[in-house]
Amino acid sequence: MALILPSIERPDTGLKEQIQNKLDNKSKPVGSLGYLEEIATKIALIQQNLTPHLSKPTMLTIAADHHVVDEGVSCAPSIITWQQVENFSKGGGAIGLFCNTHDIDLWLVDAGVNHVFPPTLRIIDAKVRMGTRNFRHEPAMTEKECETAFTRGREIVNKFHSEGCNVIGFGEMGIGNSTPASALLSIYTGTSVDECVGPGGGLKPKGIQIKAQLIKDAIKLHGIPNDPYEILRLYGGLEIAMIAGGMYQAALNKMVILVDGYITSSAALAAYQMDKNIAEYFIFSHVSGEGSHKIMLEHMGVRPVLNLDLRLGEGTGAALAYPIVKTAVRLISEMTSFEEANVFNSSELTRL
Amino acid sequence: MALILPSIERPDTGLKEQIQNKLDNKSKPVGSLGYLEEIATKIALIQQNLTPHLSKPTMLTIAADHHVVDEGVSCAPSIITWQQVENFSKGGGAIGLFCNTHDIDLWLVDAGVNHVFPPTLRIIDAKVRMGTRNFRHEPAMTEKECETAFTRGREIVNKFHSEGCNVIGFGEMGIGNSTPASALLSIYTGTSVDECVGPGGGLKPKGIQIKAQLIKDAIKLHGIPNDPYEILRLYGGLEIAMIAGGMYQAALNKMVILVDGYITSSAALAAYQMDKNIAEYFIFSHVSGEGSHKIMLEHMGVRPVLNLDLRLGEGTGAALAYPIVKTAVRLISEMTSFEEANVFNSSELTRL
Repeated sequence: MALILPSIERPDTGLKEQIQNKLDNKSKPVGSLGYLEEIATKIALIQQNLTPHLSKPTMLTIAADHHVVDEGVSCAPSIITWQQVENFSKGGGAIGLFCNTHDIDLWLVDAGVNHVFPPTLRIIDAKVRMGTRNFRHEPAMTEKECETAFTRGREIVNKFHSEGCNVIGFGEMGIGNSTPASALLSIYTGTSVDECVGPGGGLKPKGIQIKAQLIKDAIKLHGIPNDPYEILRLYGGLEIAMIAGGMYQAALNKMVILVDGYITSSAALAAYQMDKNIAEYFIFSHVSGEGSHKIMLEHMGVRPVLNLDLRLGEGTGAALAYPIVKTAVRLISEMTSFEEANVFNSSELTRL
Repeated sequence: MALILPSIERPDTGLKEQIQNKLDNKSKPVGSLGYLEEIATKIALIQQNLTPHLSKPTMLTIAADHHVVDEGVSCAPSIITWQQVENFSKGGGAIGLFCNTHDIDLWLVDAGVNHVFPPTLRIIDAKVRMGTRNFRHEPAMTEKECETAFTRGREIVNKFHSEGCNVIGFGEMGIGNSTPASALLSIYTGTSVDECVGPGGGLKPKGIQIKAQLIKDAIKLHGIPNDPYEILRLYGGLEIAMIAGGMYQAALNKMVILVDGYITSSAALAAYQMDKNIAEYFIFSHVSGEGSHKIMLEHMGVRPVLNLDLRLGEGTGAALAYPIVKTAVRLISEMTSFEEANVFNSSELTRL
């Protein structure tokens, strides 16, 4: 691994008791806001602040193509990648609409789309190559390509962070990218390939079989190195590597990271294998309709916010979870205490 | 049953195919927005419109006291009911904050709080009585009281409807009201009382036992009539009856109804037993941390939007689900089609 990275710090848990006291003094029964209180605690610890605040919520939808599509692993043609990126960049598509609905600043990032975009579009040009290499025949990325993708992800996150963003969502667009995501899932978690593949964007059983066989063939060709970053390079994708780099940097910057669905979680998993402390900064927005997403979440021991059978990607799950995360932050920072509300605090009664 | 009510119409399903076509032509794989697409379909059918729109979202948090509290079924004293109603009416508490966060117009309604509020507060005075009667000893409401509560609920909803509201959430505040809710759950669904009781706002095992015994004693005293409205009168609460009436009218008005948690669902269940067609207008916002809420939802065959272990009530779950419901409506009404987005529609390819 050519890449030398700083270690991610776990947030100091010294504030935990004060956070719990603050939540327990809100004008409601102790613990009655369930998982919202856990999210509030997590973000207060990340920010090391009893009154956390989310600023400049930003969604990075990072796109790339995948030459594995030539093998028949997708029911949709690759041209849809660039067409959707253009569409999203103009506020169209699901992610354009969802970010607009929830006041999230959406940015498209070209990590490796097989298309040249007009420079007038709202697309960040971070292109490494015209599509991820076909990992059935060669590594998905050369060492240089993977490092460039990962590093550009870090740089883009740093730019938004320097402008005041402290909560960042990651999504993706890339026809064929459930194939690398399933490969990463299988290899990082030691789950059989057959359990890790699914319909993705709508593949039929025959296509799912092709996808599984392709991953098995690739594992025979490349083997399984110990280094998680090297696994990402061999089996990942340009957008997956860029997302992993972006997430890694976001954790170094102590930002709240909203993880979208199946593909984005495979990038989160890669970053997690590189430094498990990153989990302290992750909020997993939803469990996908793509069945094996559950295996990823269980491997990292995390609880998703939503369960709505979404299987779209783009960042849509992260955008939908954002209003709930925002509510959790306002809960700890702004909700009235018993005292402020002039409400009797019965939590210490032991009547029964 | 003194009450003569119009029947609730099921929405005409003639538009269903057009709705499905419209959703399938959005620039995304068919069905990939999962449960959001079902919510969008439901609301398009309610409004009989391929471009539905939510206007003036309103939350009614309806409050009453319960003299069953004298029997030891609550770990919190009844004074908290009026203190919280005052707090909420000033924008405090969880529901004040959540409605503010999600641009929902919150109104407090006094259905039967054991307190006289200053008229200067933003509280709708619909008080029937200073607290619901103790149903261990007498019917929870006289015929007159129940009819008044139910009818005032209808009138309040009509007022908001006439001002342009077409989506209405219901929540509640009432120390002790998990006892009537559990009684209604047990009786309407034929589930044993022991399976229907739980900690509510934080009751310990001894208190849960008292709650179960009280409900069993009351069933011995009052029996189980066939008429679901009469069951509501005997075992319900003033806020529960007012919520049931409000929901009934909202369905007659073809409004979208956001149902909150355990207590509010017991009112929804009462209305559902009176006319099952009301389910076509319900969106159940979440499954509560109060374990037996699942039994209610399963009895009505409905799927909750969220699962966050909330067990607070007030309307908080409904307020949290609202941004997701709003997104579903914008999805069908505003999201780009393949054609508008200039994206190739691969859904009819049968490549594999």
